[in-house]
Amino acid sequence: MKNIANDIIAVLEKVAGSTQNGSILLHEPLFRNNEWNYVKECIDSGWVSSVGSYVTKFEQMIAEYTGVSHAIAVVNGTAALHASLEVLGVERGDEVLLPTLTFIATANAVSYCGAVPHFVDSEISTLGMDPHKLKDYLLNHTYMSNGFCYNKKTDRRIKAVVPMHTFGHSVDIEPLLEIADTFNIVLVEDAAESLGSYYKGTHTGSFGKVSILSFNGNKIVTTGGGGAILTNDDGLAKKLKHITTTAKVPHKWEYYHDQLGYNYRLPNINAALGCAQLEVLDEYLDKKRVLAKKYEYEFKAFNGVNFVTEPANSKSNYWLNAIILDENYIEQRNDVLELTNQSGYMTRPCWNLLHTLPMYSECPKMNLDTAEAISRRLINIPSSVILGEDRS
Amino acid sequence: MKNIANDIIAVLEKVAGSTQNGSILLHEPLFRNNEWNYVKECIDSGWVSSVGSYVTKFEQMIAEYTGVSHAIAVVNGTAALHASLEVLGVERGDEVLLPTLTFIATANAVSYCGAVPHFVDSEISTLGMDPHKLKDYLLNHTYMSNGFCYNKKTDRRIKAVVPMHTFGHSVDIEPLLEIADTFNIVLVEDAAESLGSYYKGTHTGSFGKVSILSFNGNKIVTTGGGGAILTNDDGLAKKLKHITTTAKVPHKWEYYHDQLGYNYRLPNINAALGCAQLEVLDEYLDKKRVLAKKYEYEFKAFNGVNFVTEPANSKSNYWLNAIILDENYIEQRNDVLELTNQSGYMTRPCWNLLHTLPMYSECPKMNLDTAEAISRRLINIPSSVILGEDRS
Repeated sequence: MKNIANDIIAVLEKVAGSTQNGSILLHEPLFRNNEWNYVKECIDSGWVSSVGSYVTKFEQMIAEYTGVSHAIAVVNGTAALHASLEVLGVERGDEVLLPTLTFIATANAVSYCGAVPHFVDSEISTLGMDPHKLKDYLLNHTYMSNGFCYNKKTDRRIKAVVPMHTFGHSVDIEPLLEIADTFNIVLVEDAAESLGSYYKGTHTGSFGKVSILSFNGNKIVTTGGGGAILTNDDGLAKKLKHITTTAKVPHKWEYYHDQLGYNYRLPNINAALGCAQLEVLDEYLDKKRVLAKKYEYEFKAFNGVNFVTEPANSKSNYWLNAIILDENYIEQRNDVLELTNQSGYMTRPCWNLLHTLPMYSECPKMNLDTAEAISRRLINIPSSVILGEDRS
Repeated sequence: MKNIANDIIAVLEKVAGSTQNGSILLHEPLFRNNEWNYVKECIDSGWVSSVGSYVTKFEQMIAEYTGVSHAIAVVNGTAALHASLEVLGVERGDEVLLPTLTFIATANAVSYCGAVPHFVDSEISTLGMDPHKLKDYLLNHTYMSNGFCYNKKTDRRIKAVVPMHTFGHSVDIEPLLEIADTFNIVLVEDAAESLGSYYKGTHTGSFGKVSILSFNGNKIVTTGGGGAILTNDDGLAKKLKHITTTAKVPHKWEYYHDQLGYNYRLPNINAALGCAQLEVLDEYLDKKRVLAKKYEYEFKAFNGVNFVTEPANSKSNYWLNAIILDENYIEQRNDVLELTNQSGYMTRPCWNLLHTLPMYSECPKMNLDTAEAISRRLINIPSSVILGEDRS
């Protein structure tokens, strides 16, 4: 069997460029628009904190871009997930369906509510939740009582489902919405990685009862650390803004809080950065598409390696590019990781599957064969916006 | 009886200056040092997120300034309180002693642990927890079992006590530490408002097993939104850093998290702002002292109004200046608030006492007479650093 690591490095060099001027990171941010101007305005005016006009402007820009009525800016994606589950009534002892193949934040947000993650398998075509497998599983392993869906084994209510658009590739959301409807499970759409991705022409993040975005430093556009909650429901939007801003009742001088709230406010200085970044999002999306197309072309003829492309009926932001090794090259995965990183091309496997982590190893789960296969075979490769620029 | 509102406005005008160029806020930040250089460096280098050198530098500067071995930068003071209680073993069903006269964050952090706030009265000389009243109360209303202190009425364990240095004035921490020791209750020191304040020559925030700071936009120095956790305990410091950074085990590419963690990381861009601000903290403290001395002087001869000065044996940062109306002027309090704000001098009463808020109204509490009296009589007045500068 051939040794593929060096061949992969050759592709990375061809597509992402030489490492002679330093390592090529997995995803670095790019600031050369109005970032400076807006941040300077914050500093000059003294309005760096949570009171300030950039937070409102950022929220408006997000809502406009995604086509969702309301966006609530928060301190990060984890906070966005937690507040969303909380406001939708996820309670202590409930279960929440989520992919085992996702970042830890999703499971932790469930834990913060006192609820229990219940892990769902992925499908290979989207890397996200497998709707067919989920439907069969729910039909066989749950029962309805008082209008709610219960886990037959644990007798816990299954209150919510949180599909995620992995690396920016749309999950097959339509059948998932149908399932959520059938079983009366509320759908929170985790679009942390998919700003700029579309499913059947509609922006991801607009399908869930509530959806979330992330603006962490490794995302396509960033606020340093930040997130947002999206919803078309006026009442939920109001509640979300309220509980993420310490549940303080507006008053010119009184400090009166009418319920348990959270200090999840995004500072104005971070929102300023976000406004400047959103202005260039379309340009960045184009560049990421160019980069992905180059990878796709180079890997097409590559025996043993498949480049992950956007699923049918969807348009990906190609946030984090990935290759999947053929089964018979699995034993070379660690070599590939080791040698690419040694050569200055930052690569990584996907997250350790959540059901394998110590604090979640006893949680309910379905058969997770596909996620396990992906986890053994997938490698993320350099994906920064700047790599999609013409270097000639 | 004389009408005091206009006389108070006259003092505010004399000390804080005229409002002809706009309102005089309660506490606005001041940026004219290296804020812009450091933030610009973040933007230029692309390191605005949680990976970046300013976070480490900020932590070192805080530790050095306060004289505490370890400082862990986090996203805000609320997160700092929550992580502190969590790491010290506050569990679901425990009770935590805290002043009723404080910002909502303290009680909320207790709630996030699933524990129950237990409210303590203040003393007039410090505005903070009354150690004598607390000692008597614990002697009469608790019992020891298996080495822990239990509430006689609820049979819940009293695990922690969280005194707070109100408006920057040191609480009488020594007798509180003795009480904590006697009853085996761990002391978390809430120094959110007291960066630059000293108790018997030692910086506040260095007394608790764990202590916290806030760098919210209204504080003496700010990071937009931010906080820090302080401890001299190497093991706790390590745990705190771990659980506030998603409990990810360091590895060059693996995403492995070994326990439930939080995404409480402070972004590098906010830390950069904080580094520049800490460089001028001593200068700001001097200015705030000048301002407080002016207020003290002007209010000395003012019948019916007492300016709050630093308690015995302590040095205050005079973060938020306050006056206390005599009992017989209580009925004019709302007039004073209304008229000062109308005149462009931002003032406010202290927070609504926590035990009066709907979600905390059923929590255990001692007699809270002094806090209630303070709450009826206290008014915060403009305190920005810039007001302490020479305007001649």
